[in-house]
Amino acid sequence: MNINTTRLQQHFEAMSLIGKIGETGTNRPAHSADEKKAFALAASWMQAAGMTTKIDNFGNLIGTLKGTDESLPILMMGSHLDSQPYGGRFDGVAGVLCAIEVVTTLTENNIQPQRTIQVVSFADEEGWRFNKGLFGSRGILGKLEEGELQRTDANGITREQALLDFGCDITKFKNDEYAPNSIYCFLELHIEQGPVLEIANKPVGVVSGISGPLWATVKLKGMAGHAGSVPMAIRKDALVGAAEIIVALNQIASQVPNAPTVGTVGTLNVFPASRNIIPEEVSFTIDLRDIDLERRHGYEKQLMDAIENISKKHGLTYQISEDTNSEPRYCANWIKTIIHNECKKLNVDAPELMSGPFHDSLPLSYACDYGMIFIRSKDGISHNPLEYSSYEDIALGTQVLFGTVQQILDI
Amino acid sequence: MNINTTRLQQHFEAMSLIGKIGETGTNRPAHSADEKKAFALAASWMQAAGMTTKIDNFGNLIGTLKGTDESLPILMMGSHLDSQPYGGRFDGVAGVLCAIEVVTTLTENNIQPQRTIQVVSFADEEGWRFNKGLFGSRGILGKLEEGELQRTDANGITREQALLDFGCDITKFKNDEYAPNSIYCFLELHIEQGPVLEIANKPVGVVSGISGPLWATVKLKGMAGHAGSVPMAIRKDALVGAAEIIVALNQIASQVPNAPTVGTVGTLNVFPASRNIIPEEVSFTIDLRDIDLERRHGYEKQLMDAIENISKKHGLTYQISEDTNSEPRYCANWIKTIIHNECKKLNVDAPELMSGPFHDSLPLSYACDYGMIFIRSKDGISHNPLEYSSYEDIALGTQVLFGTVQQILDI
Repeated sequence: MNINTTRLQQHFEAMSLIGKIGETGTNRPAHSADEKKAFALAASWMQAAGMTTKIDNFGNLIGTLKGTDESLPILMMGSHLDSQPYGGRFDGVAGVLCAIEVVTTLTENNIQPQRTIQVVSFADEEGWRFNKGLFGSRGILGKLEEGELQRTDANGITREQALLDFGCDITKFKNDEYAPNSIYCFLELHIEQGPVLEIANKPVGVVSGISGPLWATVKLKGMAGHAGSVPMAIRKDALVGAAEIIVALNQIASQVPNAPTVGTVGTLNVFPASRNIIPEEVSFTIDLRDIDLERRHGYEKQLMDAIENISKKHGLTYQISEDTNSEPRYCANWIKTIIHNECKKLNVDAPELMSGPFHDSLPLSYACDYGMIFIRSKDGISHNPLEYSSYEDIALGTQVLFGTVQQILDI
Repeated sequence: MNINTTRLQQHFEAMSLIGKIGETGTNRPAHSADEKKAFALAASWMQAAGMTTKIDNFGNLIGTLKGTDESLPILMMGSHLDSQPYGGRFDGVAGVLCAIEVVTTLTENNIQPQRTIQVVSFADEEGWRFNKGLFGSRGILGKLEEGELQRTDANGITREQALLDFGCDITKFKNDEYAPNSIYCFLELHIEQGPVLEIANKPVGVVSGISGPLWATVKLKGMAGHAGSVPMAIRKDALVGAAEIIVALNQIASQVPNAPTVGTVGTLNVFPASRNIIPEEVSFTIDLRDIDLERRHGYEKQLMDAIENISKKHGLTYQISEDTNSEPRYCANWIKTIIHNECKKLNVDAPELMSGPFHDSLPLSYACDYGMIFIRSKDGISHNPLEYSSYEDIALGTQVLFGTVQQILDI
């Protein structure tokens, strides 16, 4: 049995018109009218595949293919249809459309599995609108945090209002939570969003796990002064300190060649930010990830030592606030084995690689076993209209996903 | 003959009430109602000292003590009464009030010099309101640039409108320009705005010159990517490049211990500035100053080499735009000698030091010889409500200025 490559490509092309920006870009915010249009389109394909559909009170689109034994924990697949504000056509979309294609292929071959299958487009995976993501996938597992509904977007609209406008009833969250052990496993196909597969010249990869990020914010405080009049020797320049820390982090994360460790400073703010005043305060974010938690802890220690020493050297004080400290979440070995076997059947040499980015799989990993299939990204670009994966690669990955589902369902 | 320390302090205290913020701060914008009040108060003291006063069409307050021989080029003193938006009580104010005190001391001793003396409070030295300073001191020398009057402040008010509201007639600028050789010399007393005198434990310093700044803006361009997925080895991280350049500039400017070279990066902007995206573009400002122009040129070369090498190493492209490239302007030796002699008479051991910051003396230096006296700044702080110089130090500096004026006028 083969998935239908032409139909799959048509679905991507139709979906790319909703919230389209420029030639190849997408802007489909969470809980928006455009996301609702995307849900309607995806739901029409789910229904054509024999699924019933609903939008739950977290704003997730859920398609259900009833199994012959409804008492069995379900097989769940999915990802998200919301996008970055200046995003591409594949991030998240691939995991939803390929899962629909898998179910469509099953039902057009008249297969009704014993186990119920659900395909989910999770609400607000991206997180930029309310500065906190993975909303729908955390929601169904009862993992929302206090105050989340009061977060506001750039227009001052609260999450609560946005959900209300989307047709959700926030008083009924409990009804839409999944009971423990009700999900057998979760499968997510996703574009890699990095360059590893392209460099290795492989269309498809098997994900080993999602590396746990340490997210921290560092604030350095020195002493402002006129850039023309304070001698170099007695300066307390917070930006010079920050620069040395950025260089140190880059060295720490690069010390083992080819290790999957990554360290990034993505934002930096200077106060008072005048070209002729020595920076008094600099704050910047740290993002440190590794699939090897012990090694990451070692690097955290090295970084803290560097911050301490560099601050001392420049007469700076510092504050470090830890924003997120996640542990790596590994894919289930039994699912990885099945994915590898399916790749072999198709003569696909699929390397194993870790996922630096988060996905909806991350919260799901606390509720069930999970597996992920990565598709090669052109130039490793994502979160950008230039994001691109070929339909050949996507079709191949979908065929791997289809085989994996067959094995798991034992059909 | 001695200046009157009590009167001088009273003048500072009265002036500090106009545009007062907090306990010790000042906010007196250029061409504002508060600056006009400050002018009225200063003019009343000028008139008490026997001067005639006017506000010219550039918005300068000018007090004139007519000499017995009006054909002689004049002795000009002054500074400015406008302040930073979150500024102190001494920056600029000192140069105006101390000059008034010098003239007051002359006339209360019934001295009418042969040479005419003018005391000027120059309009908009600070430059923050329209992002371009030294307006009045450039204005009287015919050095305004095209488009200056169309510059707008944060409220959208043009310089032209602000001058009009202040009572100036911009069609009459020419009338208020000074003819070549009409100014014999310019003297400016100013707070140091840096820590050199405090560290040396000296109340007063003799300025050697105003160092010429190189102001440049550097823009680095790399490649954005997901912070979790792009391996360290293939990144083009514009912020890592910028950090290495900041460290390099700091080393370049510090290589000769105790040299007056200063190098500063005061502002830095990151794009797209998301904590989990590798910075694609970083732009930052360079401020490099040295009283030794040849050495500064050598350091510029070192910096350009560092930018080239660091960019290459990280796969970045770069653009450098030169915003300002001033040469150092040295104080006249004959005036420095007089100031040193006056210090010696008062048993003041006054070190010579350069001025990193600009002053109204800078444009004046192109029209006549000039000299500057610096007063110790507590903790080197300026452009801040914490700015402080003791009235003892200010009185001492004023006495030095008075003696210097006597010597120059040969009275």
